[in-house]
Amino acid sequence: MSSVFSKIVAGEIPCYKVAESEKHLAFLDAFPIVKGHVLVIPKKETDKLFDLPKEEYDELMDFTYTVAQAVGKAIPCLRVGMTVQGLEVPHVHVHLIPLNAVEDINFGNKLILSSEEFTEIADKIMSYL
Amino acid sequence: MSSVFSKIVAGEIPCYKVAESEKHLAFLDAFPIVKGHVLVIPKKETDKLFDLPKEEYDELMDFTYTVAQAVGKAIPCLRVGMTVQGLEVPHVHVHLIPLNAVEDINFGNKLILSSEEFTEIADKIMSYL
Repeated sequence: MSSVFSKIVAGEIPCYKVAESEKHLAFLDAFPIVKGHVLVIPKKETDKLFDLPKEEYDELMDFTYTVAQAVGKAIPCLRVGMTVQGLEVPHVHVHLIPLNAVEDINFGNKLILSSEEFTEIADKIMSYL
Repeated sequence: MSSVFSKIVAGEIPCYKVAESEKHLAFLDAFPIVKGHVLVIPKKETDKLFDLPKEEYDELMDFTYTVAQAVGKAIPCLRVGMTVQGLEVPHVHVHLIPLNAVEDINFGNKLILSSEEFTEIADKIMSYL
């Protein structure tokens, strides 16, 4: 069965896209812990980050760097954090999380945003790409 | 004033080293949240990950990949997580965290390990490098 992220890649589940390349997709986390919380994924489904062949890992990190620069410009924050855990969805995903305080990285936080807010945030990030 | 990590690089503060290259150092986190919690840093002091010039970011991610492979082999875990936050020490540091459960990534956890345990873990990781 394909992962929820493969369904997003296939367009079967909608997302608020912020960037796309041939091999990668970046979109707003549907359950953001802060405003501007972005997921960056390879379109090809691999479970674990460090199981990626080195070339695919490099390409993912490259794409992540580009997206992170835009997130940092679009979202007021002290810095953009990056985290890869992946125990819940078996498809590599890099979280980019605009941080203003240590407490901001708390996956127990779940912001409720309207579709207008999601669209506004995605548009703002895209405007820096 | 130089960061605590620059003092480690300079040898002014001891660490349990697991890997070193010309530009990078990897060592056990002195306040591990799980066994095998490693920090990977560039020796050159830069505060924020995404302020690193692309070439330095690439080099850091390359070195991190190599160290993560060894951590994954040395420490029993489901996968190795990676996180960069950096609000507490203004010197880029990548956390590599062997994960067995979602709860494992909790920076409120602080394991107390003996120097013998630290040495044993560092030696084990180094044996895969």
